[in-house]
Amino acid sequence: MDNFQFYNPTRIIFGKNTENKTAKEIKRYGGSRVLLHYGGNSIKKSGLYDKITQLLSEAGLFVVELGGVVPNPRLDLVYKGIELCKENNIDFILAVGGGSVIDSAKGIAMGCKVEGDIWDYYMDNSKVVPAALPIGVVLTIPAAGSESSTGSVITNELGGFKRYTGGEIVIPRFAIMNPEITYTMPKAQIAYGCSDIIAHLFERYFTLSPNNDLTDRLIESTITTVMNNGLQAMKNPTDYNCRAEIMWAGTIAHNNLLNTGRIGDWGTHDIEHELSGIYDIAHGAGLAILFPAWMRYVNNENIDKFIQIANRVFGVDFPRENKELIVDAMIEKLESWYKTMGLPTRLSEVNIDNTHFKEMAEKCVVNRGSVGNFKKLYPADIEAIYTLAL
Amino acid sequence: MDNFQFYNPTRIIFGKNTENKTAKEIKRYGGSRVLLHYGGNSIKKSGLYDKITQLLSEAGLFVVELGGVVPNPRLDLVYKGIELCKENNIDFILAVGGGSVIDSAKGIAMGCKVEGDIWDYYMDNSKVVPAALPIGVVLTIPAAGSESSTGSVITNELGGFKRYTGGEIVIPRFAIMNPEITYTMPKAQIAYGCSDIIAHLFERYFTLSPNNDLTDRLIESTITTVMNNGLQAMKNPTDYNCRAEIMWAGTIAHNNLLNTGRIGDWGTHDIEHELSGIYDIAHGAGLAILFPAWMRYVNNENIDKFIQIANRVFGVDFPRENKELIVDAMIEKLESWYKTMGLPTRLSEVNIDNTHFKEMAEKCVVNRGSVGNFKKLYPADIEAIYTLAL
Repeated sequence: MDNFQFYNPTRIIFGKNTENKTAKEIKRYGGSRVLLHYGGNSIKKSGLYDKITQLLSEAGLFVVELGGVVPNPRLDLVYKGIELCKENNIDFILAVGGGSVIDSAKGIAMGCKVEGDIWDYYMDNSKVVPAALPIGVVLTIPAAGSESSTGSVITNELGGFKRYTGGEIVIPRFAIMNPEITYTMPKAQIAYGCSDIIAHLFERYFTLSPNNDLTDRLIESTITTVMNNGLQAMKNPTDYNCRAEIMWAGTIAHNNLLNTGRIGDWGTHDIEHELSGIYDIAHGAGLAILFPAWMRYVNNENIDKFIQIANRVFGVDFPRENKELIVDAMIEKLESWYKTMGLPTRLSEVNIDNTHFKEMAEKCVVNRGSVGNFKKLYPADIEAIYTLAL
Repeated sequence: MDNFQFYNPTRIIFGKNTENKTAKEIKRYGGSRVLLHYGGNSIKKSGLYDKITQLLSEAGLFVVELGGVVPNPRLDLVYKGIELCKENNIDFILAVGGGSVIDSAKGIAMGCKVEGDIWDYYMDNSKVVPAALPIGVVLTIPAAGSESSTGSVITNELGGFKRYTGGEIVIPRFAIMNPEITYTMPKAQIAYGCSDIIAHLFERYFTLSPNNDLTDRLIESTITTVMNNGLQAMKNPTDYNCRAEIMWAGTIAHNNLLNTGRIGDWGTHDIEHELSGIYDIAHGAGLAILFPAWMRYVNNENIDKFIQIANRVFGVDFPRENKELIVDAMIEKLESWYKTMGLPTRLSEVNIDNTHFKEMAEKCVVNRGSVGNFKKLYPADIEAIYTLAL
């Protein structure tokens, strides 16, 4: 087991009607002048926007609004948010939405506290962001895990770069999570969310760090839970328990608990960011397409790790003729789960051909040389994985 | 799934040589005048005491020492610690030891901030402790999970009461956990520790709250890890990975993550506290004796929960003639694990007879009427469980 630090101080407030506590929590963490940050119309249609603005106003909080966050959130809006915060002496950012809104809020929170351009920190994430405004979250989409994570992923349309930065300083102070709020999500988004959650778990599972039994088993438990409850949620989107399982699993999958004692891989996320950076497809769809391809490409780096998950999660049992067949069967079971969830598993299904493979593979390693840890991937490897995913 | 709040801000600093960071962490959390709290001679023999005191002194921290914490830590020493802290304007308590030392430190930390007698809060834990001095931990015994928990259990020899209080305010700021430090533990203590950890998991597993798949599976994973690595640690106490698994599992088992969405039972802990309050036997031994008896007494409250753990953790598979036989087989497997670990599974093995059963059963419910949640236990039930454990 590798040495590690684990620190996650987000206060999780989980369950029915918990959004009623929003104003109280903002005040607990010292907020008085709030930027209310959100996406499009969905929170207006669902009534959540009205509820939250009323709560903040009743509590006497000063509020400035910035909506308009889109999936694969943009740098432009982050700049606009920074300007708004500075003009209005904002001391707290409330993100009402999913991962895109939260990541955008984190970009703004950091941008308010750095000298110079926050984008420099995304393009070179070895640069440490010194501070950030405090953030709180009312989560509407369980997927990205950004509600208690250290990270923010932002897309700069200038050049089509989708990059990551963050640190302890942007872990949200609180995350309000009411599974009922997720009932209005379109079914496709439930599937994208489950795919993203499972991807976070895979990235942490496939490690070359010395054996780490507890973390492996906790990840396996979380994958199993999401796979089972994901199928159930597609059938019955208003099954509370099942939506609650997915929502809580989404947080657990990405709050760093499940990479204690190890270095995760993250190659597939980096390769996917190039895809959704250029084509603007849903992150969860891109991951469903790329993970099987990545697994086929890298499994011989440590095939026993694949055998373990085949056995414990996918119920692919011994004896089989050889290890390769077990892994094949496991990847097929995973693909079949993606399909049942209504997700694509090939680039051709989302009308992407090989036109930009070379360009994406090269851009993927800019400033870092390679991506991934389970197997270090260079542009030729990345191109090969895109090709396997065709 | 029940509504819940989860908040655990302890900074876990895990791995080899991490004790070198002690002074730096105390300073991070604003400490300058430190009470160094510990138990007996073991940290002096192992060299840890010298290392820590040197680090604190080099860092220019003012230090007052209070050693002498015993298993089932005593109220008398808590009173002494409170006095010492007040006399010396202490602003930080460093606990170097296991659960007893940490619980004693928590008692002192709370006692410094309450008007009146801290014991009143233990005897009536509906009374909210308003504040506490900050605490840091260098953990030497993985067992109690107190290094990141909200609780403190203290014994008042006057009346033989062993009682619990706590709250968010006593969650340690940091916990330094180097598995190598645990190498010098006597083997019996490894076994007591594993028994305590597994007991924390059972207490959280057996709930009447609505079904909660993820938490169930995470608990099962942690139990499996502790059972496997516990056996390995008894064979080879200096197997680093295996000691690391147990140490990290001990924290996970008790940092409240694994009772999200449910109300735990805790009846067996309460019944055990009476035993170790009067007889001063090791807590881990008392739990190994009482859990099988408790399971036999209560399993028909929700036998399917027992079937689930029998199947997923103990490998007791279907088909069997009936559910009762599956549960019997599971409890026997658990007893057999305790025995292999060198633990007692009957009161008679530790020379306890029925002399005080009635008295203990009645004292157990003082101020609370009953204990346990999976099945509410009244004095007659508690006496029956002691009798099953004879």
